[in-house]
Amino acid sequence: MATYNFSAGPAMLPAEVMKIAQEEFCNYDNSGSGIMELSHRGKQFAPVIEQAEANIRKLMNISDDYAVCFIQGGASMQFAMVPMNLMLPGQGADYADTGTWSAKAAKEAKRFGEVNICASSKATNYDRIPVIRHWKMSEKPSYIHITSNNTVAGTQYHSFPETGDIPLIADMSSDIMSHVIDVNQFGLIYAGAQKNLGPSGVALVIVRKDLAERTGDIPTMLRYSTYIDNGSMFNTPPTFAIYMLKLVSDWLLEKGGIEKIEKINDMKSESLYELIDRSEFYRSPVDGGSRSRMNVVYRLPSEELEAQFVKEAAAQGLTGLKGHRSVGGIRASIYNAMPLAGVETLIDFMIDFENKNG
Amino acid sequence: MATYNFSAGPAMLPAEVMKIAQEEFCNYDNSGSGIMELSHRGKQFAPVIEQAEANIRKLMNISDDYAVCFIQGGASMQFAMVPMNLMLPGQGADYADTGTWSAKAAKEAKRFGEVNICASSKATNYDRIPVIRHWKMSEKPSYIHITSNNTVAGTQYHSFPETGDIPLIADMSSDIMSHVIDVNQFGLIYAGAQKNLGPSGVALVIVRKDLAERTGDIPTMLRYSTYIDNGSMFNTPPTFAIYMLKLVSDWLLEKGGIEKIEKINDMKSESLYELIDRSEFYRSPVDGGSRSRMNVVYRLPSEELEAQFVKEAAAQGLTGLKGHRSVGGIRASIYNAMPLAGVETLIDFMIDFENKNG
Repeated sequence: MATYNFSAGPAMLPAEVMKIAQEEFCNYDNSGSGIMELSHRGKQFAPVIEQAEANIRKLMNISDDYAVCFIQGGASMQFAMVPMNLMLPGQGADYADTGTWSAKAAKEAKRFGEVNICASSKATNYDRIPVIRHWKMSEKPSYIHITSNNTVAGTQYHSFPETGDIPLIADMSSDIMSHVIDVNQFGLIYAGAQKNLGPSGVALVIVRKDLAERTGDIPTMLRYSTYIDNGSMFNTPPTFAIYMLKLVSDWLLEKGGIEKIEKINDMKSESLYELIDRSEFYRSPVDGGSRSRMNVVYRLPSEELEAQFVKEAAAQGLTGLKGHRSVGGIRASIYNAMPLAGVETLIDFMIDFENKNG
Repeated sequence: MATYNFSAGPAMLPAEVMKIAQEEFCNYDNSGSGIMELSHRGKQFAPVIEQAEANIRKLMNISDDYAVCFIQGGASMQFAMVPMNLMLPGQGADYADTGTWSAKAAKEAKRFGEVNICASSKATNYDRIPVIRHWKMSEKPSYIHITSNNTVAGTQYHSFPETGDIPLIADMSSDIMSHVIDVNQFGLIYAGAQKNLGPSGVALVIVRKDLAERTGDIPTMLRYSTYIDNGSMFNTPPTFAIYMLKLVSDWLLEKGGIEKIEKINDMKSESLYELIDRSEFYRSPVDGGSRSRMNVVYRLPSEELEAQFVKEAAAQGLTGLKGHRSVGGIRASIYNAMPLAGVETLIDFMIDFENKNG
């Protein structure tokens, strides 16, 4: 029985990538050692981190104005690093509140300066991205922070605010490299790897180099310049996680890049939303214009049926479908690595389940 | 040809551990997914992190007065977290300077308060651990910081300072779990995993709980209490690195624990030092009473011979023997995972090399 893992993260990785990593796990490049057993300064690892960066630059079309860094601590560490590095004295920053993770980012930023919540959908249970023309920016914020995809509520930005001179900072942990974006619209993009990029334990940070120069006297490991100046090797980086990220980016390039994967992602999410919309049994709690293409959240007529759905799906190899504990319901996380066949199998199961229980 | 990897870190892991991890890489516990693809809150990972902690507590005989935490960022992140969490207002801290890494720890601590270098062997190229009875502690330091094993110079503490009420903090990155210690002598122990414990990307931190309460208003991800209060799962932990650490600790227990591995480690290092001492060809630059049992550093009559030695050894499957770039020479790193057979093969090679070139 094929297993399809719909976990929100850590999430499934491309089967082809897992196979390569398994094959060379104990003997990388005929060294007699696994890549995780080799020095980060040795001849085997140097090309791995270089290729990972080159792949990412190619996939996202990143100019030399930006640095590409690999940083430990996940997105939660970035919640602190962004304000520590980029907040200007007396200027504070604007945060758009679109869910659990953006609220956490804003909360952490308050340790370092004034935070203005420029928009929020909290009052409607984070069911949408607030209409951008209604946002209330402060007069001169150091930056504006958004969370591009919200895994818990299942919402996603389908366009980004135009912020002019004010740097736009985005937590893209859950939709990075899932659709084409213009990196030049952003001052800084960060993403924990464990959804679209690789295993947990490394975050990708893409930062406009001039912004990294704002950095003041903060701990060495929390300064963007430490990573920029040392090619993310000031100290031992998480070598295996970076190696996996390199393999995933190789895979994405082989697939034809982000334009191609975006089309597949659209097909996957549209076919799920189509089923939900035409059904009286399944129901989307998310505003039509804000739906996530990564985390498809839906409800059944009762919590009992939802529990039964999760259980029966798992028995058929469709795992990780339980919604986030804070909101309940069903959540199908369909990141880049989820093949179309997985979504088709889920749809077949959903139709079958509705027929039996509807 | 068997390969023996003498890399200083990331370093070789037990062959048995690598084999298990490879076998279940794509299908952990019949879940149909690899452990790195599964939610950190799911039923598969929870027992992994719990067992890792239980194993570590058992191996090191750690009482409930201490918390065991898994933190990203390596030892370098601890260079900041220790003073941020434990330095008391106006009291500063004492640091013993025994090499590159302790100097870096002291430098970082200076950002947060007064640092007193209570002992240093810098004047003699870090060839020894300064005699403890000559240390010059400050009157009431917040803590005293040491680096228990120095990978670059090849020195190691063979006894620890008695510090009474003053918490003793130790960076044990390169000799943790290699020999029996009394954890109760320490306020806090930290260790990047990539030498004796697992892959890079996670540090083990053992902290006396009452000390973690000193924590003031510092970033969430840099507070020890964040890790203690949330079982190291405030955010997504580096699940695969923790899984590997769990396997390594399983392996250590099966081997008979730290007492047993210490005996093997003693045999390994003593046989190397014995050869070096009786040879006119090889020479140890390290003071006899301070020699490391983890990193055996030695010189040959000339740099040309050293280069030839490294090259010929590698051709025979003995890799990673080049000394640290800052000091040159030869360095054989023989952490827990290096089997006796690896050291015996190295010794045979050394005798042969001396016979041909001596």
